[in-house]
Amino acid sequence: MENFRNESDLLGTLQVPASAYYGVQTQRAIENFKISGQYLSSYPHFIKGLAMVKKAAAKTNYELGLLEQSLYEKIAQSCDELMEGKYHQEFPIDMIQGGAGTSVNMNANEVIANIVLEKLGKNKGDYQFCSPNDHINLSQSTNDAYPTAIKMALLQMNKELVEKLKKTIAAFRQKGIEFNDVIKMGRTQLQDAVPMTMGQEFEAYAATLEEDISKLNNNAHLFVEINMGATAIGTGINAPVGYAKLCAKNLAQFSGYPIVSAPNLVEATPDTGSYVIYSSAMKRLAVKLSKICNDLRLLSSGPRAGFFEINLPPMQPGSSIMPGKVNPVIPEVVNQVCYKVFGNDLTVTFAAEAGQLQLNVMEPVLSHAIMESMNFLGNALDTLREKCIVGITANKEICLNMVKHSIGIVTALNPYIGYKNSTEIAKEALASGNSVYNLVLEKGILSQEKLDEILDPKNMLKPHQF
Amino acid sequence: MENFRNESDLLGTLQVPASAYYGVQTQRAIENFKISGQYLSSYPHFIKGLAMVKKAAAKTNYELGLLEQSLYEKIAQSCDELMEGKYHQEFPIDMIQGGAGTSVNMNANEVIANIVLEKLGKNKGDYQFCSPNDHINLSQSTNDAYPTAIKMALLQMNKELVEKLKKTIAAFRQKGIEFNDVIKMGRTQLQDAVPMTMGQEFEAYAATLEEDISKLNNNAHLFVEINMGATAIGTGINAPVGYAKLCAKNLAQFSGYPIVSAPNLVEATPDTGSYVIYSSAMKRLAVKLSKICNDLRLLSSGPRAGFFEINLPPMQPGSSIMPGKVNPVIPEVVNQVCYKVFGNDLTVTFAAEAGQLQLNVMEPVLSHAIMESMNFLGNALDTLREKCIVGITANKEICLNMVKHSIGIVTALNPYIGYKNSTEIAKEALASGNSVYNLVLEKGILSQEKLDEILDPKNMLKPHQF
Amino acid sequence: MENFRNESDLLGTLQVPASAYYGVQTQRAIENFKISGQYLSSYPHFIKGLAMVKKAAAKTNYELGLLEQSLYEKIAQSCDELMEGKYHQEFPIDMIQGGAGTSVNMNANEVIANIVLEKLGKNKGDYQFCSPNDHINLSQSTNDAYPTAIKMALLQMNKELVEKLKKTIAAFRQKGIEFNDVIKMGRTQLQDAVPMTMGQEFEAYAATLEEDISKLNNNAHLFVEINMGATAIGTGINAPVGYAKLCAKNLAQFSGYPIVSAPNLVEATPDTGSYVIYSSAMKRLAVKLSKICNDLRLLSSGPRAGFFEINLPPMQPGSSIMPGKVNPVIPEVVNQVCYKVFGNDLTVTFAAEAGQLQLNVMEPVLSHAIMESMNFLGNALDTLREKCIVGITANKEICLNMVKHSIGIVTALNPYIGYKNSTEIAKEALASGNSVYNLVLEKGILSQEKLDEILDPKNMLKPHQF
Amino acid sequence: MENFRNESDLLGTLQVPASAYYGVQTQRAIENFKISGQYLSSYPHFIKGLAMVKKAAAKTNYELGLLEQSLYEKIAQSCDELMEGKYHQEFPIDMIQGGAGTSVNMNANEVIANIVLEKLGKNKGDYQFCSPNDHINLSQSTNDAYPTAIKMALLQMNKELVEKLKKTIAAFRQKGIEFNDVIKMGRTQLQDAVPMTMGQEFEAYAATLEEDISKLNNNAHLFVEINMGATAIGTGINAPVGYAKLCAKNLAQFSGYPIVSAPNLVEATPDTGSYVIYSSAMKRLAVKLSKICNDLRLLSSGPRAGFFEINLPPMQPGSSIMPGKVNPVIPEVVNQVCYKVFGNDLTVTFAAEAGQLQLNVMEPVLSHAIMESMNFLGNALDTLREKCIVGITANKEICLNMVKHSIGIVTALNPYIGYKNSTEIAKEALASGNSVYNLVLEKGILSQEKLDEILDPKNMLKPHQF
Repeated sequence: MENFRNESDLLGTLQVPASAYYGVQTQRAIENFKISGQYLSSYPHFIKGLAMVKKAAAKTNYELGLLEQSLYEKIAQSCDELMEGKYHQEFPIDMIQGGAGTSVNMNANEVIANIVLEKLGKNKGDYQFCSPNDHINLSQSTNDAYPTAIKMALLQMNKELVEKLKKTIAAFRQKGIEFNDVIKMGRTQLQDAVPMTMGQEFEAYAATLEEDISKLNNNAHLFVEINMGATAIGTGINAPVGYAKLCAKNLAQFSGYPIVSAPNLVEATPDTGSYVIYSSAMKRLAVKLSKICNDLRLLSSGPRAGFFEINLPPMQPGSSIMPGKVNPVIPEVVNQVCYKVFGNDLTVTFAAEAGQLQLNVMEPVLSHAIMESMNFLGNALDTLREKCIVGITANKEICLNMVKHSIGIVTALNPYIGYKNSTEIAKEALASGNSVYNLVLEKGILSQEKLDEILDPKNMLKPHQF
Repeated sequence: MENFRNESDLLGTLQVPASAYYGVQTQRAIENFKISGQYLSSYPHFIKGLAMVKKAAAKTNYELGLLEQSLYEKIAQSCDELMEGKYHQEFPIDMIQGGAGTSVNMNANEVIANIVLEKLGKNKGDYQFCSPNDHINLSQSTNDAYPTAIKMALLQMNKELVEKLKKTIAAFRQKGIEFNDVIKMGRTQLQDAVPMTMGQEFEAYAATLEEDISKLNNNAHLFVEINMGATAIGTGINAPVGYAKLCAKNLAQFSGYPIVSAPNLVEATPDTGSYVIYSSAMKRLAVKLSKICNDLRLLSSGPRAGFFEINLPPMQPGSSIMPGKVNPVIPEVVNQVCYKVFGNDLTVTFAAEAGQLQLNVMEPVLSHAIMESMNFLGNALDTLREKCIVGITANKEICLNMVKHSIGIVTALNPYIGYKNSTEIAKEALASGNSVYNLVLEKGILSQEKLDEILDPKNMLKPHQF
Repeated sequence: MENFRNESDLLGTLQVPASAYYGVQTQRAIENFKISGQYLSSYPHFIKGLAMVKKAAAKTNYELGLLEQSLYEKIAQSCDELMEGKYHQEFPIDMIQGGAGTSVNMNANEVIANIVLEKLGKNKGDYQFCSPNDHINLSQSTNDAYPTAIKMALLQMNKELVEKLKKTIAAFRQKGIEFNDVIKMGRTQLQDAVPMTMGQEFEAYAATLEEDISKLNNNAHLFVEINMGATAIGTGINAPVGYAKLCAKNLAQFSGYPIVSAPNLVEATPDTGSYVIYSSAMKRLAVKLSKICNDLRLLSSGPRAGFFEINLPPMQPGSSIMPGKVNPVIPEVVNQVCYKVFGNDLTVTFAAEAGQLQLNVMEPVLSHAIMESMNFLGNALDTLREKCIVGITANKEICLNMVKHSIGIVTALNPYIGYKNSTEIAKEALASGNSVYNLVLEKGILSQEKLDEILDPKNMLKPHQF
Repeated sequence: MENFRNESDLLGTLQVPASAYYGVQTQRAIENFKISGQYLSSYPHFIKGLAMVKKAAAKTNYELGLLEQSLYEKIAQSCDELMEGKYHQEFPIDMIQGGAGTSVNMNANEVIANIVLEKLGKNKGDYQFCSPNDHINLSQSTNDAYPTAIKMALLQMNKELVEKLKKTIAAFRQKGIEFNDVIKMGRTQLQDAVPMTMGQEFEAYAATLEEDISKLNNNAHLFVEINMGATAIGTGINAPVGYAKLCAKNLAQFSGYPIVSAPNLVEATPDTGSYVIYSSAMKRLAVKLSKICNDLRLLSSGPRAGFFEINLPPMQPGSSIMPGKVNPVIPEVVNQVCYKVFGNDLTVTFAAEAGQLQLNVMEPVLSHAIMESMNFLGNALDTLREKCIVGITANKEICLNMVKHSIGIVTALNPYIGYKNSTEIAKEALASGNSVYNLVLEKGILSQEKLDEILDPKNMLKPHQF
């Protein structure tokens, strides 16, 4: 039989599991918000963010004379334990809640207070010795502590995401080197264009993703600007003079990020601009990833009735009906994650636009959407690298044959045989099915030696000295 | 030198071009809303919708004794002329305006009033004889007349859009018949699957688009429910008893659509549900069209390094650099229209969600987005049919060769040589580059006669009698 | 120490937990797709859908002589047990996977095969007696079985969603009755308009949501059209003649829904139109719900510096800084769910548009997005009803006072004192801060008796007999 | 009777209006793409961009010895005239076309060639003297010239947009100063919170928009990286050595922007990342603008049944039914523009994701969507500033009264009378309708002098010295 303790708040008394570190307000939130089945406890960086914020707030209160040293030290110690990953199961609140994060903030306040009480040798719930509101939340409001904790989480999560992105870039780059001598047809508008190397193609994947490192980092950098000290609406009511800047300094120390206090706290409190543009940066990355995965699926199409330039590593057997069929399952799952990122970015847009007056109450779904995208994208990047990119092989002969039989190759002959001759040959090649190479030889327009020289990659893959 | 007349309203006196049929409120709107550069005058169905509504309202007022017969007849005659397309240049208001359509409603009221005045031998602006507010707008509010006019426009525009869709379907169906004997590889996940006919493929395009006729029509049918008689907020304040139903009846007569009065006018007035779902139905059509155009571009990829199963009619010369290159420009432009439809559908979602209390003030952008999508889609359907579908030809030999050389073909052998043998052959085919057909013959597993029989389209393209 | 058994497929041998009913292909999927952390096991209706499909397929194979009666009966019994909710933990596959659902289909095939084996007294993995591929998947392809299972799931989930919607409608309707005598100001463009009752307002919420019952049901009805018998690409290769229609009949019997075979299976196999429009119907519902929740938050704004027409039941204490503050947390969480639905609808659009040629491989994320929206919306509807609507109370006096002091009330006087007099009074009221009521009395324009009669709700809330 | 001249290309001969500077390929595009009715000629910055690119290319070709000085000079002169705005009517191509911009590039090539011919005393169409392909398009492909021209256009358009944004910020800032002494209730979650000044509120609008200047500029700065010299697919085939860097240098000189050549032209050619993130930055601005306009509409709600803290300048008369009604039409139209920006951003996302292999063919709709958003947003900013912000006035007394009668004010008393006393007073105030101010005085808890001091703005609007 489960034991309970009673806790009270303005709305009355409620039973809380006796063993729980969380308290009455968390209990209410559990009952009020049965929405997504996705809980704060699955977002460890968020909990760490809350712990950092509460520790920084406590230190600031202590330094400004509002909190006694002994209690501050207990709070700091409790926050450290929370950061280490203990007590994560004590955060059972649905990620999507009403109340602009009050439940999440109070969940943290309650858990930390009860850890402190335990250290003080008191019973859980004996809040006269350490109160969620009066001590843990001192000089704070949900409206500053909650978004600051989100930002701490996002800074950490961005760091991990960028690491995964870098590894994926490196894998593409490695393939770029490996495929450096694979000459193939480039395609524009899905029509044969002119030759290139597969190395150029894969290096371009690396290069285009590489640009997104700075986009993610620069936009994540906006999260270092916090509004601690803003309290309810940014005016700082009931916060001590000097709190905002000192708290930012302490949070910088605890988090390792160059945290600063926003220059205008009334502006900063309802503002969700940093979330919007960071989500957009992820959308941009997803646009590129999705394009690349579309390419990989195109390039590996076949084996007989497709491009079949590359082979993706087989990850699971093909259809029971169709022996030998192997499908590009990894790029496919990455495409799907990208669609989810696009959807979440729209959720962010709606949530951000819905801010009213001095607060944006939609931050829970907004931050959930961003964190979900970060997790999914990170997983997708790892999956793509480990289970696909590193195992890609090139069908070099097939690629070369397509170049040889292409009509687009005629482009490189322009400077030697003229545009008019080239056009004639292109037309005849298309109509007859013969290759440009053979036609030129058959017509005796150029010697085989000369033709081979012109079609040497060195002459087709870069600007020319005329 | 342009001449002006003075007109007044609550905000004061303003100069209106002497020749203009519109009046002071339209003049204010011209000056207030310089936003999109797209004017009501470019949406003839919208103007016709306004004319129908004003005529129906006038007849109802006359029948209920609020308007004298002689004035009613003049108004009706003026509305008829407006419907015929005269005076469209008198609607110079930006399609995106504030005021929930008041400017548009007043534009119609003013133009009709001045046409009437002209018929009465009065000067423009002599509103004591026929007033935009007291006579043309009698028993109405912008909040009922404006959305009703939009709905009249959308009903007409949907009819035209569906006609264009039907023609496009017919064109695909015709190609389905024409390509009935072109056997080709079906592809799943871009990998070779099992054979089918190109006729099946193109008939499927017809069939999938055909389902959207009823989706468009059924959802457009929601527009027949109107809120005339609701006046300001649906309570019908200042409208005579019986007005709502009688006005719907009159509008049904004038428009030819089975117009009915909404059962709950308080609900109907701010409701934008019909727009949302109709826009979604267009989005569904665009999803399908975009998928089909992606397919057409894939199937025509090549000519040497792609699928090259079909040829799209060349519409413009290829690149000056690459002789002989012809690009799938028509499917490409249709794809782009689809992306615009997706964007407009999002605009509709935002605008619909922004309704507040007794009205949705965002109807101007909402209706503009829908109308733009309808126009673009209609143009895209015509363009696709005329400039692409009807001219598509099949590369029958290439298609057949891909089937013959495919490994997927092995699937059809399963019932005859067993899954185990099939697998062996599939593996060997992939590794060696040899064809399944040759391998079976070489190994003497089946006679050529039997093999040819099994691979006969009749046996591969439909369920089998085992 | 955990025990394992070895299972093999085309890619080789893999260890599967000895106790697992799932097999090697599920095991591969577990390892391949670590994406969302949301598993099939959390979607019981999906698993039921798979069980229904496999049972119907087995019966059809039996009736067409492809499966022995004894094995059919064991399969049917196993599917029944699966439907009852046993073995749900045997579906550990990530909801977002590549492979177009192959992993999910094979997961079901493997689990059912092993349940059957257990019934046969065989060991798990002894597939020669009952094979996931040869027996459970007989005459099927992932490309028909998987989307059919999704549709079975969506039909069931829609039924539950509509039930929740109906209850929410009933709750609004009840409030409409309860607030029938609360007279208040209607507002258009957030500006005071004319009077109405709060009963009309809440009944309008019921009425507008009521329209969405048929929208959801009609669009869900599209899911009764299935493509069983299509096998790989809709041509029905390797399926017996008559299979498609008979399987639909059997599935109708097992599911209780009027399942029919799609008229064109080549069209039906890649088509995702039904998902797109059903998702759009949910989006429409979300647009309305979000608008209503915005209204509830507006109407309860205050208590002193807002509209304060209604009180939402307090669900959690207000800010620790601001005593007495109670926030509209339930409408807020519903708004957020709506934004998530909008995001998921976009994911669906992207996934649907990405279909290529004979298949849409993006169905996993597409169906996940729809199911997530259904779950979230269902939870939001229950939460809104239970924790908000039923407890709403009206501040009748405040509402009436706003009507009495409003200027909009002047509208109702038009027919009695004329538009010109009304305008004069409106202007003076706005400038002086005096009420229209008082001004009319002070000026002696109407007797108090007459004035009270005109402003009686009976005369202001509906069309008038002039 | 209109005269024509004949022009030919690979597809045959076509009639072109004799007076037209454009040629056969433009003529084909006119006929092929009847889609949006929005023409290149309405986007002067785009035409200027094309002219700059063609001039820079010509100079580079001249400097590299590929073009004679005399012809170069004529081309440069023609480009200058094009930049000056002559010949804009010679760009009649629909903004949404297929062909990845080929039509637009050829339109520019043809117009410039014919201007040159005119200067040479030749007839239009005598392309042997100056050819659209051989001379104007020399060393270029549509795939480098077209996106570079777009980027030149966007750089110019961004500059104008930012100017308009800056003026709007200045207008809000001015109001912030003007309203510095208007004390009012801050609101969170639409519930009364704690006091602030209206000056703080409007300064926050300025501050939040100010952050978007750098977001727009920094993301627009990505457009300075161009791919001239890439030719067809980035390999630079048929371009002379050194062309890319020299052309960038020349374009920098002609445009005044710090143009540079992309480090990897194979990557740069299909990449649309800069468009995606710039569109996102506009979306972010639109999110903020829409939120602010929502606020302005809320704050001006009333006059009797709303917040009525501010008055927006009346721009048009209210409803004919409701005398004295003035609506917030300008914020409303700005909201609608923002919804259009959100829609266009989605169009951009779809178009960017659809890039395939070595090119993104969807750039026409992508660039059109961005340019439309820029134009609409620019117009909206001007409209908002001129017709709304500058004329906003505050209802100072009403604001102050709401503070005095608020319960939230009790928060400021916490440090003086304790949280328990505050709570009691808050409860009694809510229940009785009495003000906190009066209750404290009535109970004699604080002297009026002390109370007035505490409620002095100086003590409530910023952090406190405890």
